[in-house]
Formats: sequence, structure tokens, C-alpha cells
Amino acid sequence: MIKFKIPATSANIGPGFDCFGLAYSFYNEYSIEKADSMLIEGCDPAFTTKDNIFNVAFNKTMKKLGKTGSYHVHYKPTIPASRGLGSSASVIVAGCRTANILYGGKNKLSDDEIFQIASTIEGHPDNVAPAIFGGLTASTKLNDGTFYYKKYKVSNKLYFTVLIPDFKTSTEMARKLLPKDYKKEEAVTMISHSVLMIEALQSGDFNLLKTVCKDFIHEPYRKKLIKDYDLIKKRVEKNGDAVLIISGSGPTLLTISNDKNFYKKINLKGTKDNWLIKPLGLKK
Amino acid sequence: MIKFKIPATSANIGPGFDCFGLAYSFYNEYSIEKADSMLIEGCDPAFTTKDNIFNVAFNKTMKKLGKTGSYHVHYKPTIPASRGLGSSASVIVAGCRTANILYGGKNKLSDDEIFQIASTIEGHPDNVAPAIFGGLTASTKLNDGTFYYKKYKVSNKLYFTVLIPDFKTSTEMARKLLPKDYKKEEAVTMISHSVLMIEALQSGDFNLLKTVCKDFIHEPYRKKLIKDYDLIKKRVEKNGDAVLIISGSGPTLLTISNDKNFYKKINLKGTKDNWLIKPLGLKK
Repeated sequence: MIKFKIPATSANIGPGFDCFGLAYSFYNEYSIEKADSMLIEGCDPAFTTKDNIFNVAFNKTMKKLGKTGSYHVHYKPTIPASRGLGSSASVIVAGCRTANILYGGKNKLSDDEIFQIASTIEGHPDNVAPAIFGGLTASTKLNDGTFYYKKYKVSNKLYFTVLIPDFKTSTEMARKLLPKDYKKEEAVTMISHSVLMIEALQSGDFNLLKTVCKDFIHEPYRKKLIKDYDLIKKRVEKNGDAVLIISGSGPTLLTISNDKNFYKKINLKGTKDNWLIKPLGLKK
Repeated sequence: MIKFKIPATSANIGPGFDCFGLAYSFYNEYSIEKADSMLIEGCDPAFTTKDNIFNVAFNKTMKKLGKTGSYHVHYKPTIPASRGLGSSASVIVAGCRTANILYGGKNKLSDDEIFQIASTIEGHPDNVAPAIFGGLTASTKLNDGTFYYKKYKVSNKLYFTVLIPDFKTSTEMARKLLPKDYKKEEAVTMISHSVLMIEALQSGDFNLLKTVCKDFIHEPYRKKLIKDYDLIKKRVEKNGDAVLIISGSGPTLLTISNDKNFYKKINLKGTKDNWLIKPLGLKK
């Protein structure tokens, strides 16, 4: 048995819609070995079929390696599914890694080659990039069809806490909520906000962060899927010691603060859903 | 007589609308001295009146310094006006600097204090920031009303050439051409393009630059003010060895290439206006 782990990730991170991603020190752990036939176990039986993304990713990677063979994998997901924490990107990257570790031999694929395969399967590179490279990433698809990422180091003056509710949302549904058009002022503001959000996260400039961590693309529409959003946002941002954003397409919420103990102050009394408050380090 | 110089600048730089700015090693030079009454000379008489932005900037800075006094300034503009090369930002910054140099004494204002005053007068910080700090800048107005900038170092693998036509456009008119709304795909694409444009300019990654140096906010609308735009763009980008963008609100065009001698290949034969081809270094 060989073990490895892949981190949970948040895409978007406020103004970085379909571009930014952040990796946490919160992982799914996978135990793998070579086998005569494919077997996925430990997780929900719905995720153990041949058409599951883990197996799809494994097969795509094997094709790239020019190898044949199969595997057993055991994983008990600790990253909850359909919560906006990149669980599907994590599983895809794990499928790629499994093929690479078990069958790559001396010709193992590079992380960038795995990034290309996994992003193609996922469709977007924004969760895949931090799941592979850690840290804060900005990623996109280039004109030549390949995927590009840039990794940034996040200041250790900032503290991240996710609020995970006990309900799921689908990324597809969340995507359908977005409008067809945006006002000029909104589209223009996203430019400075996204560029300077990278700077705020790198430098830890919390005053800058509070101005630029405002999104007009998805949060005003997707918050409808989260009954407690307005209440929690008001409470979290009340004293100016944190910002609250939606992790990925939700429903997990993410607070960023310059106070290490901010998570202890988060008051979720009276909310309609049940929430888990989880302070998280970043995977560097 | 004390002499100083302020650089020409390009705002926007492709996807960085109302945010990015770039300073060139191409300057207006100002000669100043204390005097009993205000006198601006050397430039077009239209720019020598008391309500001229140079004098407005001087007075605002004197007020901040808590001083009274006047000046003579002589400058012969080499940065052409109303061409999208930041001539007004240059004049405003020069007015501020004049007060600071002549009357600042031991309590001279910092560059950041001058940046605040000049940005307030200009309304936007995007030309002011590079005019003061040089390099590539991203700037915005913060929630507390102050202006913020971040300076980046541009790769020396990239070469910049401005194409300056013999006609003027007004920023106000150019601003009115913009639509009220943008399609979702356009607004979303601007996020990755602007963030990764900073990276492309810093790293000199020309392949990345060619993907992300595409703007949907202003160029498709403002190009109508430049009769030769489509022809020049087609010729400049034909072989993939340069990108062409509008400098500020135009009508100056800017090419960015990874070929030091690209400016020699620019073919402007048959264009309807007269163009000056000017390769420029950056003010670091």
C-alpha cells in the first residue's frame, strides 16, 4: 500500500471568479496498490463505479503514460462533497497521481503534465491548480489549449476559517444562477479587485483586502442558495475584523481575518442550517 | 532654477482598464523657481492660466504644506497632449512637485502624499501612480477614500513601442463610447486576463501575454476613434511577434514584443493618418 494525500481547495476567493484557488492543510488520504482489476473502496458506493472521475482520471493518465494495468484504492473522504471545497478536483488529481505513482516508473509525469490532464477532465483549472501545487493560484486556459497556473505565497498574517453547512449544492445549479450581463461598473471594478486581491493575500494588507475582497460576478446571485448567508455575513464583517466570501460555488463560506482567534468569535446562533466552524491552515 | 522631469505613462495596458499604468523613459522637463507671482511659460498659452491643472495642483499641495508663495515654471511639453500618454497626469504631478520642492523645506511631503493629492485632482490614480513611482502599477481607490498603488517590475525581455498619431481624442469622449453592460463571458474573462497580465509583464512570458493581453472593456469601442486601428492591429499581430493595444483612452497605440527590433518591422504604409513610431524604454 502506498499512501498520499490531496488537499481541499477553495476556488474564486472573492473577486477571482473562475481564476483563483487556495489549498488548505485539510486532505483526502488515498491508499493505493497495483491490482489486476479496478477497485475503489472506503467512500460512498456511488463513487466506486468505472465511470467515476477517479477511474476516468486514472485511465487518462495511463493512456498518457502509454501503460496498461489496474489498481485498488481505498479512501475515506474527509473533504465533504458538493460543498465548494474542491472534492471533485481532489479525486481527479488523486486518480492521475495513482496512475503516475503505480505505473510511471522512470518516466513519471511532471506535476504540470498532471495539471493538464486533470484540468481537461475537470473543465476548469481553478481547483486543480491549488490541489496539485498548493498555495494560492491563478489559472486559465491559454490560446494554444493548454492550461496555465501561477502560484503565489500567502501572507502568514491572514487566517482562514471555513464554515461548512450540512447541506449540498450543485456547481451546475450554482452556475445557472449567474446573469447573462453585468453593469459596466461591476465588470470594471472586478479588474482592480482581482489584481489587488492577489496583492492583499500576498502582503497580508488587511485594509486593502477589505476593499478588494468584494465580488460582483457570483456571490450576489449564489447567496440565494444559502439561507443564512446575509445573517452570517453581517455578523462576520460587523466589526471589520474579517471578510466573508463563498468558497467555490458554495455552500461553504470562508472567512479571512488578521486575527488568529477570529474563528472563536464567529456566532452562528439562530441560523437555519447547521454549520461546522473549521479554522484551516494553508497547504504551502 | 531647479529642474525635474515627469514621465509619460500609458494607462489600461490591455486588460487593466482603470487600474494598470506603465511609465516610460520619455519625459516632460520642468524648470522651476520661487517667485512673487505665478507664471507658466514654454507651453501652449491655453495651459498657462490660473485654472490650469498645474496651478491647481500647486495650490492644493501648498495648502497641504500649510505654506503660501508662488512660482515661475518653464516647460516645453515633449509628451503630446490628448494622445493617451498621461500628459495631464504628468502636469498635475509636476504642479505638486513644484510646491513640494520650492516650499516643502524640512517637512516635504512623501511621494505617497503627493500621490493622494494628484489622484484626487485627476480623479483616477492609474496614470498618476506610474508618473510618480515609475514601473508598472496597479492602483485603485480604497473604501476609506484614499488611493492605493502597487508597483511591479517589468521583465527586460519585453520591448515597448508607441505609435503616436497626428490627431487628438478626448478622454471624456472616449469614455462615453463604452457600453452600459458587458456579457458575462467578457466580464469573467477580464479577471484572469488582468491578473495574469501582471504576471506576463513581470515574467516576460510572451506566450502567456498573447493570451491575456485581450481586452473586452474599452478597446472594441474606442477603436472606432482610430481609423487605422484594424489595419495596424492586423499587421502588428500577424506573425505573433507582438501584441497591439490602445494606450490609455487612445489614440496612441502601444505594441509589446519580445523582439528588441520589432519596431523596425512595423509597417504603417497606406494608413489614413500620420503616425510616429517611437520605441521606448521604461522608467524603472
